[in-house]
Amino acid sequence: MTNEAEDQPRRRRRSAKPAAAKPQPRQPRLRFPPVNLVSADELESIHHAALKVLGEIGMDILHAEAKALLKDAGADIAPGSDRVRFDPALVESQIGLAPTSFTLHARNPARNVEIGGAYTAFCSVASTPNSFDREGGRRPGNHRDFQNFVKLGQTLDAVHVWGGYPVEPIDIHASVRHLVALFDMLTLSDKPIHAYSLGRERICDGMEMARLARGIDAETFEREPSLFTVINSSSPLRLDTPMLEGVLQMARRNQVVVLTPFTLAGAMAPVTLAGALAQQHAEALAGLVVAQTARAGSPFVYGGFTSNVDMKSGAPAFGTPEYMKTAIIGGQLARRLGLPYRSSNANAANSLDAQAAYESVFSLWGAIMGGVNLMMHGAGWMEGGLQASFEKMMLDADLLDMVAEFLRPVKVDVEELAFEAMQEVGPGGHFFGAAHTQTRYRDAFFAPMISDWRNYESWREAGAPTAYDTAERLYKSRLAGFVAPPIEPERLAALEEFVARRKAEGGAPTDF
Amino acid sequence: MTNEAEDQPRRRRRSAKPAAAKPQPRQPRLRFPPVNLVSADELESIHHAALKVLGEIGMDILHAEAKALLKDAGADIAPGSDRVRFDPALVESQIGLAPTSFTLHARNPARNVEIGGAYTAFCSVASTPNSFDREGGRRPGNHRDFQNFVKLGQTLDAVHVWGGYPVEPIDIHASVRHLVALFDMLTLSDKPIHAYSLGRERICDGMEMARLARGIDAETFEREPSLFTVINSSSPLRLDTPMLEGVLQMARRNQVVVLTPFTLAGAMAPVTLAGALAQQHAEALAGLVVAQTARAGSPFVYGGFTSNVDMKSGAPAFGTPEYMKTAIIGGQLARRLGLPYRSSNANAANSLDAQAAYESVFSLWGAIMGGVNLMMHGAGWMEGGLQASFEKMMLDADLLDMVAEFLRPVKVDVEELAFEAMQEVGPGGHFFGAAHTQTRYRDAFFAPMISDWRNYESWREAGAPTAYDTAERLYKSRLAGFVAPPIEPERLAALEEFVARRKAEGGAPTDF
Repeated sequence: MTNEAEDQPRRRRRSAKPAAAKPQPRQPRLRFPPVNLVSADELESIHHAALKVLGEIGMDILHAEAKALLKDAGADIAPGSDRVRFDPALVESQIGLAPTSFTLHARNPARNVEIGGAYTAFCSVASTPNSFDREGGRRPGNHRDFQNFVKLGQTLDAVHVWGGYPVEPIDIHASVRHLVALFDMLTLSDKPIHAYSLGRERICDGMEMARLARGIDAETFEREPSLFTVINSSSPLRLDTPMLEGVLQMARRNQVVVLTPFTLAGAMAPVTLAGALAQQHAEALAGLVVAQTARAGSPFVYGGFTSNVDMKSGAPAFGTPEYMKTAIIGGQLARRLGLPYRSSNANAANSLDAQAAYESVFSLWGAIMGGVNLMMHGAGWMEGGLQASFEKMMLDADLLDMVAEFLRPVKVDVEELAFEAMQEVGPGGHFFGAAHTQTRYRDAFFAPMISDWRNYESWREAGAPTAYDTAERLYKSRLAGFVAPPIEPERLAALEEFVARRKAEGGAPTDF
Repeated sequence: MTNEAEDQPRRRRRSAKPAAAKPQPRQPRLRFPPVNLVSADELESIHHAALKVLGEIGMDILHAEAKALLKDAGADIAPGSDRVRFDPALVESQIGLAPTSFTLHARNPARNVEIGGAYTAFCSVASTPNSFDREGGRRPGNHRDFQNFVKLGQTLDAVHVWGGYPVEPIDIHASVRHLVALFDMLTLSDKPIHAYSLGRERICDGMEMARLARGIDAETFEREPSLFTVINSSSPLRLDTPMLEGVLQMARRNQVVVLTPFTLAGAMAPVTLAGALAQQHAEALAGLVVAQTARAGSPFVYGGFTSNVDMKSGAPAFGTPEYMKTAIIGGQLARRLGLPYRSSNANAANSLDAQAAYESVFSLWGAIMGGVNLMMHGAGWMEGGLQASFEKMMLDADLLDMVAEFLRPVKVDVEELAFEAMQEVGPGGHFFGAAHTQTRYRDAFFAPMISDWRNYESWREAGAPTAYDTAERLYKSRLAGFVAPPIEPERLAALEEFVARRKAEGGAPTDF
């Protein structure tokens, strides 16, 4: 376990020291049972509806090798067809093989995170096409913004894991983008990484770079999950070629597959939440079967991302009541399979206003009460995933820190119950000067980075800063003070050499 | 029960029709067990610490009649002293007498709310000294703003109950303010009301006006709780004269006492959460004993309002991780006593920005997961209670509607599981045109009033409105369209006559 610092919260520290100088950030743990929104019987109904979907409708599996594996395992596939039907017994036989919990390794072991059980890990924003800051406005993702997001996220304790590229650096040629981007992530940061399943070369390059950054041999790499990939099914009921290639390559080397159906109710899934969840479950189960037939016992995370659309415009909505419900029931479904659970900190706001905040906190509420183990898009996500925002990353880090603090248990013992302090102060007194207060007040409460608790007059005199203003000021100060985490020279050299060689070879094909 | 409309959500309705024209708003129900943050043993430790406080330290009870009642019941009071020590057996003997659930009656029976059990009722903002809207800025509370808040709240389905004056109308003389304010609340609105415990005349006038507005006799009034009063202890460990007068007057007529200690950890309570909760519990128990010795079985609500202060400035903080924890544990303590539970939608923000939203939603999270039955300050509270905001009232109503929608159960049956729709659409298709979608899409999802889900380009073209802008626009449109709810002419005449008579008598003394 890597959570020795877990019970030492950040308190009353508002400065922007780079995280590299600090001990490993505590990883939050859920101290209470997740909420169950559907009964055990209803949960079984959803599970069995998913089995019926897989058995009678089937999935399109657009990958010859994956189809061959599934056929060998007993799936029903007509010659020349991509339609795969899974006997319920085949599906059930693959449940329970993947670990309920595992360690995701970083190049810096102090950054390892536990995925599963009562632990939760927070990821950065990932995979947005646009970046945003207030000063520069909205623009297509680029290398400079990409690097700045990685730097900012590295300084934020609340960002435990890179969930992908915070923004797509589209000014780097697609053939070598993964090499440049992963090199940045592995050198500007020492936190665990994600690699995209966009064809064999990219995912294999990602694995090799994660191995080199850790300075380990191939055998150790296969024993110790060192990166993860998010696999999105092409809902409804289809898994595409590059994604399936990623499942096979990653599972075979015992690396982490996070399978997340993007089941927007009313668009790519039934308009009813139960139906959308049944489809989500079917698609996740299909991915599980592919991964486990590729390598039984390989680490697999159940992803839930079911939300609703605005039925007038078809626009996806996030942080809605429907989203909260499916986030919680998604956790029930993951636990039904004994798998770690992925959810997200999502919102559909265009500006860092009250909507961005309330949709995000509603999303966090659903995820945390659903027993989330891997919180994707934890910090920086805006506009339903079309925008990564620097100010939002800063603000979300504060929200995630607050959630982590909420999850720390309340101590109840004689000292904490404070009978003697109440006796000392007595009716009508105050506790500011009490010995019990004086010995504790410095560390008594969580100190947020953004929240402004000044009275109205002082706040007005200070220029009436909003949370948006404060987030802007703080993210800039953190970036200005960024210090890259140390890396062993031989590992850096190995990464540089690998990237140079693969660039010289032309990188990855771009015909995907 | 009055909740026949409870399972018919507001959906896809963005217009600002006055609530008076609509059927009774559904009252949300908690469909899952509240979260327990402390163990049963820890809960007992807090309870027993509170009993020890009451037995050994005691409370200051600044009311001769209340002291006499308590002495008769067996409390230990030295002659000439206000310090009352309660034997644990005396306290325990008063637990279990008050109802676990009761109906709070409105002048319009369709507005009755159930307080307790699995039900939750949302109150307006209450008791702020300043009002605010973006156009007019911040100003001391006044009669015009007071009336406008009452009108706005009347139109909002999410406001079930008046938790007090939304803002103090200080331009009305204090001797008659309660008469004017309650007359407004009972005529501009038909929802259940609150009256302040500020001396015998005011609380008795409040009861009489609630009775006249309902057109019932004194006997019916005593059988049917028709208003409530919030009693704040003067923490630490003191109950003041006007508040105790309110407890006695209200309890004796079987009206609702909501006892809420204002136990800010580190200021008026121990700096530790367990200690602050022990003190909260002691003060609530003392109030319970007063109320139940005044009239056994009178309705009593356990209020939790424990939060932390900013230890640098002493400023109260709300919606913090500490606040969420005490909100949840407060619910455990209330249930330990078999009492309905009051919590709040609180924040300390000065502006309707992301902070106002995230602190509010964190507060709602704590309250809902704590099993709240009466959510005070549900709509409009800002600045730690120093400001009532029109825009915040509008935005909070949307948050409360979302919470209510979240609490509606997810249906899981053959129709909702949508196997046939998935079969019809098949892998790679989409659900927009499916019959299953077409018959349901209009009412499928909750339609928020404020959230803006347009894409970035459309949103920019529309002037890039923030949630604050939209809240401003909507609250103004609702006020402009306000129609007062009907009132029976004889009840109106009775109220008018009562107010005129009491004004002529000089109203209430102002030497409190």
